[in-house]
Amino acid sequence: MMTARELTDLIEAGERRIGWARRSMPVLTAIAARFADERPLDGLRVAACLHVTAETAVLMGALRAGGAEIALAASNPLSTQDDVAAALGGYGIAVRARAGVDMETYYRHIHQTLDVPPDIVLDDGGDLVNILHTQRSELAVRGGCEATTTGIIRLRQMAAEGALRFPVVAVNDTRTKRMFDNRYGTGQSTLDGIMRATNALLAGRTVVVAGFGFCGRGVAERAKGLGARVIVTEIDPVKGLDAALQGYEVLPMGRAAEVGDVFVTVTGNRDVVRGEHLAAMKDGVILANAGHFDVEIDVRALEALADSVNYGVRPNVDEYVLADGRRLLLLAEGRLVNLTAAEGHPAAVMDMSFSAEALAVAWLAGEADRLPPGVYDVPADIDAEVARLKLAATGIAIDALTAEQEDYLHSWRAGS
Amino acid sequence: MMTARELTDLIEAGERRIGWARRSMPVLTAIAARFADERPLDGLRVAACLHVTAETAVLMGALRAGGAEIALAASNPLSTQDDVAAALGGYGIAVRARAGVDMETYYRHIHQTLDVPPDIVLDDGGDLVNILHTQRSELAVRGGCEATTTGIIRLRQMAAEGALRFPVVAVNDTRTKRMFDNRYGTGQSTLDGIMRATNALLAGRTVVVAGFGFCGRGVAERAKGLGARVIVTEIDPVKGLDAALQGYEVLPMGRAAEVGDVFVTVTGNRDVVRGEHLAAMKDGVILANAGHFDVEIDVRALEALADSVNYGVRPNVDEYVLADGRRLLLLAEGRLVNLTAAEGHPAAVMDMSFSAEALAVAWLAGEADRLPPGVYDVPADIDAEVARLKLAATGIAIDALTAEQEDYLHSWRAGS
Amino acid sequence: MMTARELTDLIEAGERRIGWARRSMPVLTAIAARFADERPLDGLRVAACLHVTAETAVLMGALRAGGAEIALAASNPLSTQDDVAAALGGYGIAVRARAGVDMETYYRHIHQTLDVPPDIVLDDGGDLVNILHTQRSELAVRGGCEATTTGIIRLRQMAAEGALRFPVVAVNDTRTKRMFDNRYGTGQSTLDGIMRATNALLAGRTVVVAGFGFCGRGVAERAKGLGARVIVTEIDPVKGLDAALQGYEVLPMGRAAEVGDVFVTVTGNRDVVRGEHLAAMKDGVILANAGHFDVEIDVRALEALADSVNYGVRPNVDEYVLADGRRLLLLAEGRLVNLTAAEGHPAAVMDMSFSAEALAVAWLAGEADRLPPGVYDVPADIDAEVARLKLAATGIAIDALTAEQEDYLHSWRAGS
Amino acid sequence: MMTARELTDLIEAGERRIGWARRSMPVLTAIAARFADERPLDGLRVAACLHVTAETAVLMGALRAGGAEIALAASNPLSTQDDVAAALGGYGIAVRARAGVDMETYYRHIHQTLDVPPDIVLDDGGDLVNILHTQRSELAVRGGCEATTTGIIRLRQMAAEGALRFPVVAVNDTRTKRMFDNRYGTGQSTLDGIMRATNALLAGRTVVVAGFGFCGRGVAERAKGLGARVIVTEIDPVKGLDAALQGYEVLPMGRAAEVGDVFVTVTGNRDVVRGEHLAAMKDGVILANAGHFDVEIDVRALEALADSVNYGVRPNVDEYVLADGRRLLLLAEGRLVNLTAAEGHPAAVMDMSFSAEALAVAWLAGEADRLPPGVYDVPADIDAEVARLKLAATGIAIDALTAEQEDYLHSWRAGS
Repeated sequence: MMTARELTDLIEAGERRIGWARRSMPVLTAIAARFADERPLDGLRVAACLHVTAETAVLMGALRAGGAEIALAASNPLSTQDDVAAALGGYGIAVRARAGVDMETYYRHIHQTLDVPPDIVLDDGGDLVNILHTQRSELAVRGGCEATTTGIIRLRQMAAEGALRFPVVAVNDTRTKRMFDNRYGTGQSTLDGIMRATNALLAGRTVVVAGFGFCGRGVAERAKGLGARVIVTEIDPVKGLDAALQGYEVLPMGRAAEVGDVFVTVTGNRDVVRGEHLAAMKDGVILANAGHFDVEIDVRALEALADSVNYGVRPNVDEYVLADGRRLLLLAEGRLVNLTAAEGHPAAVMDMSFSAEALAVAWLAGEADRLPPGVYDVPADIDAEVARLKLAATGIAIDALTAEQEDYLHSWRAGS
Repeated sequence: MMTARELTDLIEAGERRIGWARRSMPVLTAIAARFADERPLDGLRVAACLHVTAETAVLMGALRAGGAEIALAASNPLSTQDDVAAALGGYGIAVRARAGVDMETYYRHIHQTLDVPPDIVLDDGGDLVNILHTQRSELAVRGGCEATTTGIIRLRQMAAEGALRFPVVAVNDTRTKRMFDNRYGTGQSTLDGIMRATNALLAGRTVVVAGFGFCGRGVAERAKGLGARVIVTEIDPVKGLDAALQGYEVLPMGRAAEVGDVFVTVTGNRDVVRGEHLAAMKDGVILANAGHFDVEIDVRALEALADSVNYGVRPNVDEYVLADGRRLLLLAEGRLVNLTAAEGHPAAVMDMSFSAEALAVAWLAGEADRLPPGVYDVPADIDAEVARLKLAATGIAIDALTAEQEDYLHSWRAGS
Repeated sequence: MMTARELTDLIEAGERRIGWARRSMPVLTAIAARFADERPLDGLRVAACLHVTAETAVLMGALRAGGAEIALAASNPLSTQDDVAAALGGYGIAVRARAGVDMETYYRHIHQTLDVPPDIVLDDGGDLVNILHTQRSELAVRGGCEATTTGIIRLRQMAAEGALRFPVVAVNDTRTKRMFDNRYGTGQSTLDGIMRATNALLAGRTVVVAGFGFCGRGVAERAKGLGARVIVTEIDPVKGLDAALQGYEVLPMGRAAEVGDVFVTVTGNRDVVRGEHLAAMKDGVILANAGHFDVEIDVRALEALADSVNYGVRPNVDEYVLADGRRLLLLAEGRLVNLTAAEGHPAAVMDMSFSAEALAVAWLAGEADRLPPGVYDVPADIDAEVARLKLAATGIAIDALTAEQEDYLHSWRAGS
Repeated sequence: MMTARELTDLIEAGERRIGWARRSMPVLTAIAARFADERPLDGLRVAACLHVTAETAVLMGALRAGGAEIALAASNPLSTQDDVAAALGGYGIAVRARAGVDMETYYRHIHQTLDVPPDIVLDDGGDLVNILHTQRSELAVRGGCEATTTGIIRLRQMAAEGALRFPVVAVNDTRTKRMFDNRYGTGQSTLDGIMRATNALLAGRTVVVAGFGFCGRGVAERAKGLGARVIVTEIDPVKGLDAALQGYEVLPMGRAAEVGDVFVTVTGNRDVVRGEHLAAMKDGVILANAGHFDVEIDVRALEALADSVNYGVRPNVDEYVLADGRRLLLLAEGRLVNLTAAEGHPAAVMDMSFSAEALAVAWLAGEADRLPPGVYDVPADIDAEVARLKLAATGIAIDALTAEQEDYLHSWRAGS
């Protein structure tokens, strides 16, 4: 048990952390101010299953300012910032999250967010929506938001099977989110996590990036930018060709496994690094996952392969020693390395995706009852509005079309 | 008049050039072989208005091999390779094109491709389709392909206004074409054109790229890769932010005009560099256009501003001397610098877009009569087939999904 | 006071940390094995003033293996890893260092390394050699090594004035050290320190790097590689031109101050960021120093400018609030950001510079008495030997000259 | 024979070309103006063996303005610009050079520059100095300049053997020349030559760069900047490690030969690409040399390997067809690809190296008789003067040291 003093300290630490994040999130802060004024969410009950971090706290604050009643659980048992969780109480938000809980507690927390039946649910990976469909089908949710590619894949499958019961906005699928959050956020924070965990010099290392989606592209760019030689693996021919044309070496994982020094999985799929690959690796390789779930590196195969394991040789580094003496270093137990070993996406990046999510909640508040179940894109004008607010906050001026240019674009009679 | 010997020499030069291109176009060559076997275009009449280059000749050969009867005119009065035009006769293709013709002859050539009423038209910029709609509306064309972003913008506008009379496939809009042709092809060939025209050292120069679409991104990457400091101008907030996040300085043209050494327009719009910008520029700046039409740099404003012009100080370079002695260098008269001062897209790039176009013609041959007028995307399986053929030709192996991975992606019940 | 148990824990933590470093330092480990065999340092007394880190511990181990008797003090009052200091006792090394001591204690510790008069001194910044010349001139030191550019500048000045009393090897001046340690080590660890301290997204930020020596080049490359727009300031015309030709914007600090988001000083000089610059900066800028001494950012001017200071808004971040509300964020109190906020150079980099230093000590043991006072380069064959050992450890094979090629290079009669 | 009209046209074409170059060479133009005023070369006879290009013409003009009497021959039988050679007569310069002459004529031309015994010789590769030492040892030359790394290697060897008879300034060895000319000039113009010769898309290609000196580094950077995957081969361990730390794959040529698409030699040595390597290469590879002499690719081995050769499949491209049908494309007959297939270094680059050479000639005019035979570096103040003039011409402002900073750098007593 925590003393009152310890709790006070924890809350104050959380508030400082949230304050720091807020100053890096000018767009969401502007939206919060507008929400406080217009109260578009008055009376709306929101259940959220998100990483409990300072940036999420700023989003919760914006929704609360708009009038929503909120229950929040963690979307990952390791990523909770306990001080932030403690501080969120001050916003009147019910938080069910603690770092390092076991899986049973983790799922109980998610269930508890449904104690008051929600109108809108915010999910990050699909656990909350999954529970709603498999265990709490009595609840009549009006609409939801899902923030990960992984979650969207599942939701589209559910919709195709007729199993989805309410409309869900794919907040991951905006141009803003894809470009800025997936590419730049995951790119930097993944490398940041690897450096904090290992302090390894990346210049001159061979980094294998599995998956060349937006996240994978970001990871590859940052690894290259730190001086690494980058190898990409893919299963999609168009993405594979794109990687090759960007100057990356493209190999099947079977061959990449033999030459890589650092492996980063970011595919949204399971078993990307398997036993056969692990068995072929060099002494001292570093294994990191930047995909949402901890299934991309086959940790059970790694355990089976190892003679012994030195857990925690450094924080977030476990050293698997093979029979022949080779050591494979697994970071963050195969969980999201950028959230576990670093601090996740920088607040400035989350500013954009959470701003889209806040505006999507307001849109759902008005539109959800008119929408059949299905997966919906974020309306284009929400995306453009976020970009406009961000440009204004960054102090970047761009050009406007002249009247003649507008005419030119709209007239097919202009000729050559 | 040309002597028989001169004509023979010209044809042989064209054949060597086409042979060289064909060896760089393995995908289209494979499709041509299949077409020769399956004859999917037997009896089809095709009118094409394309840059008359060696790569186009390989496309014409593939369609001819598939059984099509073809008439070809140039889509740009400066880009015709006369030896290629001469050699194309040997394929049984009626060619109406000669480098450097005046605009009257240029348009007469396009009209002549319609002497035999075509089933399918291939356009590159929209002049042929424009003529069909404004001057030859008696012709009952079944379908078409359009290869440029500029042309697509017009066609969508026409479709929106109900003016479009037949289905057109936007062959510019495949992932393959966008990524590889627009980005890598235009990127390299534009810088190649600038170097050939000026022999200027790009390292240390400030290059202003107007437009950050796929082409603009490619030009910016190559300019950066050659050591330039790159400034981007945009009118779209999301693209502007993306450019900033990629490390480029983003400025309005009004401010970029004062600091740039080299300006490249690639927007698809007119008057991007205007009199007010030209008047603010430094001595010795280089002006180049990589957009489809020669309207992006306001050449008339440049003429009005100049005291005198030294035409052809180097091939493809005109020097405009202002009253105060500053010299502005206009490349290729403001026309496409990569086609005029260099050789256009490398054959390896055109291999991909022309392969998509060849497969689209075969698809239209079967489907056109079932399609209402409108702009159509290239069917996704055509795009993927091109990528697969290209990977095979390049010798790059990628991974395949395991059965477990397929299951995982398709099952939303898998949980975390 | 620490309990026995706490001390044991501290020592074990230090040993784990040293073990981790040793596995990343194969070259120095190979040299240690050779030293243990050949005992080239038997009876030699060494006083060292170095950052007390795990990598330094591996160097101390190698010298000890060679037979040296060692006394070690810290070269920076903030950089000491207390667990490493505790563990070093196990090697029989007298360590005088503790993190966070005041300056009086810091200097007393350095003095204590001289209690047993040393033969050879190892310095990192010049404090030890300075004390030997100004306060302990009775000691007859035979030779020394200096590891920083800053220190070497002073030593050359002393030598020019006839004030230097023994030969010193400039271990900073090898090609190995300059390229790998200064450029790649400082480059990565400086950005690492900034990310750990702030979690700021660097993509899209404007990073101003003051100084374009080997360290500055490394910082600029890594910032660019993380997606930043990089501006360089210099005082040397050749370096300034080189930066421009590499595509960086080059500005005087007076103008860079107005546009930068992040400032990194790495010049070896004082007052590079002065009051006049600080007064012109934007709200929220980040100030970091990567030069050896904490004099590059004028912290006193910053204090004078600020209305209030929020110390420790995050670890290693102090927020200076100006009268008009602007907040300037000073990292690590203006001390070396890579050592204070991150973990300094990766072990793999230190492997090379410390290997050169170990071989230089052995060389000095044999040669020092024959050398007049002065600053000496590391002998070229030591540098090449380190590179050869490193290549072998990395598994990179390179070509060897054929006999014909050797002849060609050595014969000026070969003609064209 | 040329008619008077043809000659007039040729001269005018040369003058336009020289005028274009001069406008890109503001530093040398400024020096020429000073020379015309001060006449530091009055009465000096200069024999030069240089590439006869427009930029060389501007250098000749500067020396002539300073009062020198000049005889000029080509340093490469393929690189002469005939129009420039014709135009140089107007400066009163005796030129012995014509594009495409045979080797006998080439050497006769060099001999003719010695008809009037020179005081100073300017060499570019060593042929002129070689003739002076082996065939014209009766001539009492006072001093010389040599512009290539290759030439300097020979001269140092001659000096070491006591064979060198006069002082020679290594104008290749200035920081200005190395960084800017070798790295940026050779880098860009080599890739430019490859693109002009082949029009190949470099994105996605594997480019093998043999040699990682300043030129090789430049070629590697530009190839990477154009989207290629770059492999480096080296014989020097420190350079090999540096390449690896910059993110390049480093391989022996034996293994690189199997995977490369484009090979560029830039080592200064012979037989870098040998029969064993050629035999292992893929169909369609491109072979280019950017080293001074045409000995780096073993063309005789290529001829021996080929069943047939298609000379000139494109300008500057010969296609060697092996027995199994593979085709290897040799550019520019293995001679300098940047001079033969493109236009050599951009004028802006040559501005810096030729400015150093012009100032070195003036320095030699005063100092040569006091200098013993040997190879001399360009005096440091000449190098800094060139950089200062160049910065002024580029409009880049840098910082100056404050008085306090000067003091700090010069005082070792400052302490920490």
